[in-house]
Amino acid sequence: MKNTQSVVERKKAAILAIGDELLSGRTKDANIHHLACWLTERGVTLREAQIVGDEQDAIVRSLNHLRATYDYVFTSGGIGPTHDDITVEAVAAAFNEPVIMHPKAEALVRGYYEKRGEEVTAARLRMARTPRSAELIFNPITGAPGIRVANVYVLAGVPSIFRAILDAIESDIEISEVIYAQAVTAHHLPESAIAETLAQLQSEHPDVAIGSYPIDGDELGVTVVVRSDDRPAAQTTVARVGEAMTAMGFSPIFEDRK
Amino acid sequence: MKNTQSVVERKKAAILAIGDELLSGRTKDANIHHLACWLTERGVTLREAQIVGDEQDAIVRSLNHLRATYDYVFTSGGIGPTHDDITVEAVAAAFNEPVIMHPKAEALVRGYYEKRGEEVTAARLRMARTPRSAELIFNPITGAPGIRVANVYVLAGVPSIFRAILDAIESDIEISEVIYAQAVTAHHLPESAIAETLAQLQSEHPDVAIGSYPIDGDELGVTVVVRSDDRPAAQTTVARVGEAMTAMGFSPIFEDRK
Repeated sequence: MKNTQSVVERKKAAILAIGDELLSGRTKDANIHHLACWLTERGVTLREAQIVGDEQDAIVRSLNHLRATYDYVFTSGGIGPTHDDITVEAVAAAFNEPVIMHPKAEALVRGYYEKRGEEVTAARLRMARTPRSAELIFNPITGAPGIRVANVYVLAGVPSIFRAILDAIESDIEISEVIYAQAVTAHHLPESAIAETLAQLQSEHPDVAIGSYPIDGDELGVTVVVRSDDRPAAQTTVARVGEAMTAMGFSPIFEDRK
Repeated sequence: MKNTQSVVERKKAAILAIGDELLSGRTKDANIHHLACWLTERGVTLREAQIVGDEQDAIVRSLNHLRATYDYVFTSGGIGPTHDDITVEAVAAAFNEPVIMHPKAEALVRGYYEKRGEEVTAARLRMARTPRSAELIFNPITGAPGIRVANVYVLAGVPSIFRAILDAIESDIEISEVIYAQAVTAHHLPESAIAETLAQLQSEHPDVAIGSYPIDGDELGVTVVVRSDDRPAAQTTVARVGEAMTAMGFSPIFEDRK
């Protein structure tokens, strides 16, 4: 991907998924892949993902690396009402800020529960606590808002809520033209058979990223993905890959890809 | 999880999944979750996961952090025959070692292709290159072996091959008793309603990790997961959670969990 930066200045992003349950195997993370697709569709490059448990030191260390390195950092998880939700404290610690009861967040949480005729408990008000400089992000599903501190967007871990809060951030994100990407697949062609052609094409077209992916194992076929902001160079590369596959007796299948 | 270390000395592990395709959204990683379950079943704690693209600097930086911090580090991806597979070079760079053509790996790769009557090309021999001090890990599926360098296990990214190589490592890993874990679920009980009970139980049982997970959103139910090497303390905690749910008019469902 790094070779494709010269034409379009894309923003770079990272995600930090937080939760013991992701590391024990109890829960399979779904937010990283959703964010990857969401950003790609908006011309933003996801560069790194990390998963850590509900431990303040680990969260602070990861977050301070990611926020210093990338334009946008998204976190998922750990912003609920229970004692094991420590993301807000950890984000505040990373920014060296105190945690406050955010007046607007408190009004949102109170309004949400009062409207439903439910008690506004201390646990529920935990969801109105933020780092001092936080801004709120609209959560269309529950009363607990997402949080932004500088370039860090703090989202819920439950996938339906993660997605809803993410969509509410869209206007904050500097969107670029979607990178041009096309895939060429040849079934039953082992990637090792086309490897030298691909290496040659890559050296001829340094501004095109050529990825080679075995379909399942080494011997059942290959998908070559070509990405670039230099569309003519990408199209030439894709055509050359297809010709090489045809010359080896295989039938290339072309697809637009993300 | 950190509070449960006092009784059993568990090994700690991390995974570094490597590949542009995981960050563009083209491919949904399956190896992190598989490894999480595999390690949990063997009493090893997965503490961190990272995903980076096919970029040497990013791989080296992540790997040097992870291998200094954890007992075992597993990598997935980037060890195939094509130009975009750079994991071996990156691992060698992290260990400040040259890449060599590993004699045993070369014999394996040559044997694999010769037996199938296929040409042993330069691209295929790329899969026999390793950091100088590497040991090989048996790959029951294709000719290209996995690689171990010190506490770093370098595995293929294709899930079926990742899993097969992982199983070949089992005897290398210091296995502990599986942590005792039980889950209690109450449908339609919002986790915020039981939050204060859980916080109280957590303060009474510091050697028990109590996790609270909304089933879907905040309002459709909660699963409380209790983990500890102190089985009596965990069982007491689980029973108390169940009693609290019953007292609130919900029917707790108990399950053994990983």
